[in-house]
Amino acid sequence: MIGIDNALNIINENIKKLTLEKKDILSCLNKTLAEDIYSKDDLPPFDKSAMDGYAIKSEDTRNCGAENAAEFDVKGSIKAGDYCEDELKPGEAFKIMTGAPLPKGADAVIEIEKVEVKGNILKVSQAVNKDNNVIKLGEETKAGELVLNRGRIIRPVEVGLLASLGYGFVHVYKSPTIALIITGDELVGIDSKFERGKIRNSNEYSLKALIKNLGAKALSMGVVKDDKDNLREKIKYALKNADIVVSSGGASVGDYDFVDDILKEIRADIKFTSVAIKPGKPVTFATYKEKLFFSLPGNPLSLITTFEELVKPAIEKMMGRQIKNKEIFPVILAEDFKAKAGRKKYVFVKIKKDNNKYYAYKTGSQCSNHLKTMSKSNGIIIIPEECGNVKAGKILSGKFIFK
Amino acid sequence: MIGIDNALNIINENIKKLTLEKKDILSCLNKTLAEDIYSKDDLPPFDKSAMDGYAIKSEDTRNCGAENAAEFDVKGSIKAGDYCEDELKPGEAFKIMTGAPLPKGADAVIEIEKVEVKGNILKVSQAVNKDNNVIKLGEETKAGELVLNRGRIIRPVEVGLLASLGYGFVHVYKSPTIALIITGDELVGIDSKFERGKIRNSNEYSLKALIKNLGAKALSMGVVKDDKDNLREKIKYALKNADIVVSSGGASVGDYDFVDDILKEIRADIKFTSVAIKPGKPVTFATYKEKLFFSLPGNPLSLITTFEELVKPAIEKMMGRQIKNKEIFPVILAEDFKAKAGRKKYVFVKIKKDNNKYYAYKTGSQCSNHLKTMSKSNGIIIIPEECGNVKAGKILSGKFIFK
Repeated sequence: MIGIDNALNIINENIKKLTLEKKDILSCLNKTLAEDIYSKDDLPPFDKSAMDGYAIKSEDTRNCGAENAAEFDVKGSIKAGDYCEDELKPGEAFKIMTGAPLPKGADAVIEIEKVEVKGNILKVSQAVNKDNNVIKLGEETKAGELVLNRGRIIRPVEVGLLASLGYGFVHVYKSPTIALIITGDELVGIDSKFERGKIRNSNEYSLKALIKNLGAKALSMGVVKDDKDNLREKIKYALKNADIVVSSGGASVGDYDFVDDILKEIRADIKFTSVAIKPGKPVTFATYKEKLFFSLPGNPLSLITTFEELVKPAIEKMMGRQIKNKEIFPVILAEDFKAKAGRKKYVFVKIKKDNNKYYAYKTGSQCSNHLKTMSKSNGIIIIPEECGNVKAGKILSGKFIFK
Repeated sequence: MIGIDNALNIINENIKKLTLEKKDILSCLNKTLAEDIYSKDDLPPFDKSAMDGYAIKSEDTRNCGAENAAEFDVKGSIKAGDYCEDELKPGEAFKIMTGAPLPKGADAVIEIEKVEVKGNILKVSQAVNKDNNVIKLGEETKAGELVLNRGRIIRPVEVGLLASLGYGFVHVYKSPTIALIITGDELVGIDSKFERGKIRNSNEYSLKALIKNLGAKALSMGVVKDDKDNLREKIKYALKNADIVVSSGGASVGDYDFVDDILKEIRADIKFTSVAIKPGKPVTFATYKEKLFFSLPGNPLSLITTFEELVKPAIEKMMGRQIKNKEIFPVILAEDFKAKAGRKKYVFVKIKKDNNKYYAYKTGSQCSNHLKTMSKSNGIIIIPEECGNVKAGKILSGKFIFK
């Protein structure tokens, strides 16, 4: 049995090859950029007005004041999207809209609110500085400038930024495909009537939803009969057609043995078979060529916990992200919690913030089958290995789940 | 000009009808449940073993101890998924796997690690309590119990929980369709060569990405010529075919006039035309029958800010969520920041956590065109209306963006 940090290090070391793909920028949303992005142009590509106003030569206003107005001939009007061919001469002005390019010869814009206009005559009663209300050519971005680094996660603003730079397609790290093998002869489809001794197959749905939320692809092999030959074929198929294989064991020890036996037979490299977290102790991690194999427990809470703690970081790393632990913060127990010493224990709780402190409340039985408990929870607290029962008021480490 | 809280209240009041749809549970991920979910069964549907061990009658071990072992005939083995027809008699035991149903007559399970077995004879040297290692019928959930309330957001665990309850389809609030009308004669497609006076249309991409991240649907009308008749037709079409219409103004004042003029002509109910935030001041919000109309500024930063602050809450409310402000927390300025008094100002910053405190760092020009600045930012700080320049060390309110 190894600790979770150790397990994560081993997983991290065994992800060797990241695959790239070129996609249209909207499909790249929430993926990780796999190339450096340079600007192809100076942006804006021309001196432009930041305001609605009048484009003038600033030197024409050098001696202006309340008592000493300068007058200009308004030669015309420039809208955003227009381009003015005329060159501005001393004593001339153009009406100009926000975003419109300055006419040649102009070097400043005075806001519409600060002038007087009578017919074609503009009156300016203050000195205007050079570049006033002008966004200069290349002020936002210079041609050749590195704008986005490889490794950046593409949020909506980066989609917009890439569009503004004229990139319709970029390279991102490809989302892995995760094959799902659900074992357990006790499982029936969710639309089936119960037969005696059976329960519904919820794990396939939880896993598909977890994978969907990561932006990765699930390849589900459905519920696979606990028959070694059948299971071996399914595992081989999964290893061939996916980047990661996740099996969810039936609840019995025998099932895990099948999976581990098959992994040995096909000469997969088994890295560990047990991790010191509760819920979730029996977890096998193996590699086969460059593929990863996770055998997770069949109990719903253990399954979701081990997926979140071990498989999700592997998927994220394959998608070009850093493996890092979720933010852990101090949580005050609002109630007493029971635990056995000897294994690090995750307890699902409702974390509430009050007066800038976090408090943990019970959400129900921590028995591995209680999805209802997990559903009431928004976080976990971590009871250390050496602790037994813990009292209200004690401060432990906690984190949010599904964030 | 109205304040942002007031604007949000007005938007909130004007969302009247939420639409429901029935979808398969995986498609419901991250949507809001629109019905109460009751359990159809007692779960588990039978007394089941929580451990690999031996099912026995607890009373057979009443006087057991290290010196006084009880012996049992092992009658067979029950795997998860099996159902045992035989009734256990005193002095008998069944080997039982985790998740398997207890045979009739058994009321406890003793773990495999705590017994001795020789051939068919099981030796137990300790008293075993009734219900030891037994998950009782209905212990997880009772038939008829309310398990999930209307209004719950469906996370992966809720998908699993619904599956475990036998719900393949549930009612959720339907995601709205948001029509996009991008105006601005200065805009060219992102694959086009620049002509003089033009810039690329990035707003359509930012908006589509923002909408995609909310799980809503975009209906883009593309770049619409600044021609009143054309714009009127597009606005009418959008109001007919979408739940919310978002127009992104060209940068000039004239463009906003067109939109507001048309809204008046078609007798839309204009609720406000300006909100006291920077970037983003000119925002028109109107209703037309039960549809919402937002006219947002064309500058990329203003557009994204006003979408996040005003349109996103409206979309979320339509999806059955509560309109609430993002979590605001105290942020210490790591540098001096400049601002003009008179308008609440959002400054895009990099917020870093150090020693449990948050610090704000500059990310570049706050000019409304600088998507690059926003791309370097992970949060904003709010400089109050009455403040001018603010010094390093001052504590302001901040929040994360895109979270």
